[in-house]
Amino acid sequence: MENSVDGNEIEAPNNLTIGGTLRFLMAKTNVEQSKKQVISLAIGDPARFGFNIDVAAQEAVLDSLLSGIFNGYFPTSGLPQARKAIADYLSSDLPYNSSPDYVYITSGCTQAIDMVISVLARPGSNFLLPRPGFHTYEICSSFRNIEARYYDLLPDNGWEVNLETVESVTDLNTVAMVVINPGNPCGSVYSHGHLEEIAEMAGRLRIPVIADEVFGHLAFGATPFVPMGVFGSKARIFTLGSSKRWFVPGWRLGWLVMNDPSGEFRDPKLQTAEAGFLADTNKMLMRTSNLCYDKLKEIPSVGCSFKPEGSVAFMVKLNLSVLEDMGDDKEFCLKLAKEESLIILPGFAVGLNNWIKIAFAAEPLSIEGLRRLKAFCLRHSKQQINAA
Amino acid sequence: MENSVDGNEIEAPNNLTIGGTLRFLMAKTNVEQSKKQVISLAIGDPARFGFNIDVAAQEAVLDSLLSGIFNGYFPTSGLPQARKAIADYLSSDLPYNSSPDYVYITSGCTQAIDMVISVLARPGSNFLLPRPGFHTYEICSSFRNIEARYYDLLPDNGWEVNLETVESVTDLNTVAMVVINPGNPCGSVYSHGHLEEIAEMAGRLRIPVIADEVFGHLAFGATPFVPMGVFGSKARIFTLGSSKRWFVPGWRLGWLVMNDPSGEFRDPKLQTAEAGFLADTNKMLMRTSNLCYDKLKEIPSVGCSFKPEGSVAFMVKLNLSVLEDMGDDKEFCLKLAKEESLIILPGFAVGLNNWIKIAFAAEPLSIEGLRRLKAFCLRHSKQQINAA
Repeated sequence: MENSVDGNEIEAPNNLTIGGTLRFLMAKTNVEQSKKQVISLAIGDPARFGFNIDVAAQEAVLDSLLSGIFNGYFPTSGLPQARKAIADYLSSDLPYNSSPDYVYITSGCTQAIDMVISVLARPGSNFLLPRPGFHTYEICSSFRNIEARYYDLLPDNGWEVNLETVESVTDLNTVAMVVINPGNPCGSVYSHGHLEEIAEMAGRLRIPVIADEVFGHLAFGATPFVPMGVFGSKARIFTLGSSKRWFVPGWRLGWLVMNDPSGEFRDPKLQTAEAGFLADTNKMLMRTSNLCYDKLKEIPSVGCSFKPEGSVAFMVKLNLSVLEDMGDDKEFCLKLAKEESLIILPGFAVGLNNWIKIAFAAEPLSIEGLRRLKAFCLRHSKQQINAA
Repeated sequence: MENSVDGNEIEAPNNLTIGGTLRFLMAKTNVEQSKKQVISLAIGDPARFGFNIDVAAQEAVLDSLLSGIFNGYFPTSGLPQARKAIADYLSSDLPYNSSPDYVYITSGCTQAIDMVISVLARPGSNFLLPRPGFHTYEICSSFRNIEARYYDLLPDNGWEVNLETVESVTDLNTVAMVVINPGNPCGSVYSHGHLEEIAEMAGRLRIPVIADEVFGHLAFGATPFVPMGVFGSKARIFTLGSSKRWFVPGWRLGWLVMNDPSGEFRDPKLQTAEAGFLADTNKMLMRTSNLCYDKLKEIPSVGCSFKPEGSVAFMVKLNLSVLEDMGDDKEFCLKLAKEESLIILPGFAVGLNNWIKIAFAAEPLSIEGLRRLKAFCLRHSKQQINAA
């Protein structure tokens, strides 16, 4: 068979990170042979996908730079005015005031993850991570020799947390559970009721929740985004976030916030800040995600049971039985890279074999990428091959 | 006695970091009573002291921001072009080429310190740190439950490393020694010969050297700055540096570099880049450090045996025997903060009791600060008090 792949090549990415997997696939593209520009739908980085950033944010950085007053040292936990701004921003969604004293500014959400794990970890302890999930939690745990345990998300139920699997893996050495909402890599947005269920269970099990809300407010479906901090009285909640929601992940602004619901309760508030930017952003994300979803629906060998409602990527299932000589998601993505110069992340890299992760890109990138995916799937379908 | 200090207050900073010590002292200033604006000569942050930054650097950041192409993700180890720029910059001082592959870009030198310690540490291991030294090494070691051991610097010998004390504390679990040059907090610059001695000893003891060169090229005395990497064939050298030398510590650009002398040797090179900025900077540092030195010489109760040659601060010894009721460096600095609204770091915070650390500030800050220091010392001198 043309384009056959030897076993070694397929096995190579097994021990790799997402970055390593993508570099491996990138190296396998054959631009000369396929005469196609390389397209990657693998990483949810809207900054590369033609989305606009908020001009107000750019102007603020410009002003700070030119003022000359922020060149010097600042406190390790962040400038007081930045900590207050983040506390105010988060408070507008909470029934209590988040205190600047509990806001720690980090170098992207990655440092927030590393920090919360290093603070909670102790010898012999374990963390509960969602499967599929975000690999940085595993890397940070493993670097500190801390066990990562997994609970399942339910693909047929909007990727909700399978609460039974959480209970079954929790023991006295469990120091926290990670909840990612809006979901990475699933594109899910959890309802108020489901988040409350999670918080109640965590409270009952006496484990803190690490609420990864890096895609907070990127919710464009029927379910509105609710921060886990709302349930701060039911369980200890650590909230993580970053500048990625404003499409500037490279600016490396992240935060780690301890929720403190014992502060004074105040009146319900109306969120006005950044409403315009968010509305535009979510409109665009809805359009591109709908486009992706519709295009994927046309491809019989991928199963699109869940329509994304949040974040910048989602998961679709491979129907390998209708494809010829396609052993698993790794082989699928490797052949796709080689033949179509199209990079898509195999699901094994996020903990779910025989699925793939699709990042929404803005047109025309996504249209061309999904056109290639369709051509590839049709070319490799058993029906097509048998008919030929 | 007026302004007497109770025991509790003096003891308070004992377990604190430098930042905690300074906040404690800051809280003790009494601006209303002393009618003096608070002056701090405690932290070597030239950005706050009226030193100018390099306009080329500011323009480069501006261009990057406005280009819009650096808003997205970049590799964890840094952008390839930035890694190459740092490798080229360091190579111009080395007899071999530093490889971009061995350059890791970090969030300030603090992350470089944390990273090198986390990579070298293993259970039961120990690091050798200079005394006096830089507290972040202790914090990072202690956070990983790794023992910090100390070797002495020789105040009467240009703060050179006491090689005998290094040997005496080294054992099979010693994983690295830290060498800070130009010296923090001592203002020393080590000669080519002394650095070679250190590297030879480290090679013989088989311990890597963590060369903290955060003040690299800020050398304005008789001794030129020589990077430890020059002796990369004698011992394994890790070089740490940051944007602080360009007076923009707040930009958080740091690096951790493994030296790789087995690369090709090349012809001696002339360093041309940033020569103008450095010459101006060092001229200004020489002027302000000379000014500090001369002013301090006029104060009989402080001993100024070493004239600074590098970095942005140095250590002076307190002669407590000529002062009335001044138990130690902590009490001295606390009373100074209360009476004169002048913040100076007590030496205990850097590992040297009964010394103080003086950061060079630009005039008129340093003139006024040192005028207050002199008035304070004269007011508390035994001679003065007995004569009254």
